[in-house]
Amino acid sequence: MTQAEKAYRFRELHAGPPILVLPNAWEVAGAKLFQQAGFPAIATTSAGIANALGYPDGERISRDEMLDVVARIARAVDLPVTADVEAGYGDPVATAKAVAAAGAVGMNLEDWHAEKGDTLVDIDQQCALIRQIRGLGLPIVVNARTDVFLAGIGDPETRLQRTIERLAAFHDAGADSLFAPGVRDAATIGALARALPGPLNVLATPGMPSIAELEKLGVARVSVGSGIARAVLAVTRRIANDLRAGSCDSMFAEQIPYAELNRFFE
Amino acid sequence: MTQAEKAYRFRELHAGPPILVLPNAWEVAGAKLFQQAGFPAIATTSAGIANALGYPDGERISRDEMLDVVARIARAVDLPVTADVEAGYGDPVATAKAVAAAGAVGMNLEDWHAEKGDTLVDIDQQCALIRQIRGLGLPIVVNARTDVFLAGIGDPETRLQRTIERLAAFHDAGADSLFAPGVRDAATIGALARALPGPLNVLATPGMPSIAELEKLGVARVSVGSGIARAVLAVTRRIANDLRAGSCDSMFAEQIPYAELNRFFE
Repeated sequence: MTQAEKAYRFRELHAGPPILVLPNAWEVAGAKLFQQAGFPAIATTSAGIANALGYPDGERISRDEMLDVVARIARAVDLPVTADVEAGYGDPVATAKAVAAAGAVGMNLEDWHAEKGDTLVDIDQQCALIRQIRGLGLPIVVNARTDVFLAGIGDPETRLQRTIERLAAFHDAGADSLFAPGVRDAATIGALARALPGPLNVLATPGMPSIAELEKLGVARVSVGSGIARAVLAVTRRIANDLRAGSCDSMFAEQIPYAELNRFFE
Repeated sequence: MTQAEKAYRFRELHAGPPILVLPNAWEVAGAKLFQQAGFPAIATTSAGIANALGYPDGERISRDEMLDVVARIARAVDLPVTADVEAGYGDPVATAKAVAAAGAVGMNLEDWHAEKGDTLVDIDQQCALIRQIRGLGLPIVVNARTDVFLAGIGDPETRLQRTIERLAAFHDAGADSLFAPGVRDAATIGALARALPGPLNVLATPGMPSIAELEKLGVARVSVGSGIARAVLAVTRRIANDLRAGSCDSMFAEQIPYAELNRFFE
């Protein structure tokens, strides 16, 4: 598949049901395992990549370091890859070009930075950015994100309406997919899916409706953020604690053979 | 600790009992978890780093890419870090300098390449290399490795004697620690530990004597190679297969919270 074909295919995958389930990778071996598991596309996780490289999440890593990992993953799999590039590292338009150059065919664009507290990026400014990115003519599926729910911004009763207003505006500006991380209950998710003019992406976190239920509620895309990365780090910690206490049992309980992993890359 | 102090401390840790148990890291977040678990030093794994970056093990990765990860790990922990730099990427002396520049205080040096089949590096040539590396005066603990057992070279009855001969020569040439991966049974391990003039390093693999038993047998250092990396990749695969089948249960079973990981790096 060419990059344009991958982008087209990836955009089509948002027209379900079936719901598009995206695993988020942070290194190449895991991305190869996601492909082997049969996923039709792969996302990356900014938190997973940042932590693996020694940074906290939140644009403390450089764009080049983040996209070096994205490019390694895009080269290693025969699937569309969408990049978590946070709020665009200070220059979302340049970041969109760099995402395409890295071989990815999708990008997230956030409307909030942790250090800005309660302030979201101005809606008109964010829409102008999305139009500029669209205007580049790149094979990039734009996943516009609002952090109203995730960051808990504004009165709880205002969040659903504000999320709809922002995501609908982002859609009008050209976003292909609309991301509302932090929505958790079926009623809110269903209301969002019904109200939005484009495909809804939610973030899977503990306690949420099942993937089958999300599909019934009208969700187009579900991703897992740093969920898999943080799960395997919990296992790393458990194995490390056991080894430090003198036991190799948890390390040996479940392992992919050395030769099998190497064959992946030959 | 300065780099010289770390090297001195790391060398001292080979003078046990207690046996020195080294977890092998392949990215920064895991290395931080190893430090948190209380290990006195950390090793890296060439296979783990290569696979994470999209390569098979066996010097297919460049020295610069390998040592970029080693340097990130060395910067992120307050412990001695020893680097798995395989057989030295075509120029073991230049690699030793690069290891020190990366902030590591130890390096492995292998005497075999997979593509060479049954041929080990000539013993005098390997000893000359070790002398050259020693002659640089770098704060580097040299862990000289022979792959007689791991690669199954020569008649099985000759392997113990040949391993002793090679590792003893490497010790005479200046190696601080003597690595015999592939030895598995208590009788062979005990015979090696008794016969060698320096600290014995073994690789922990399934079915071997326990760490406590290895200590009783006289082993000075035990490392795990890509064991932890391959264990967490098995978990990654299991979570991916479950997610592809529509279930988030294994992903949510055990996770380090997002905020806790970020605090690691602040």
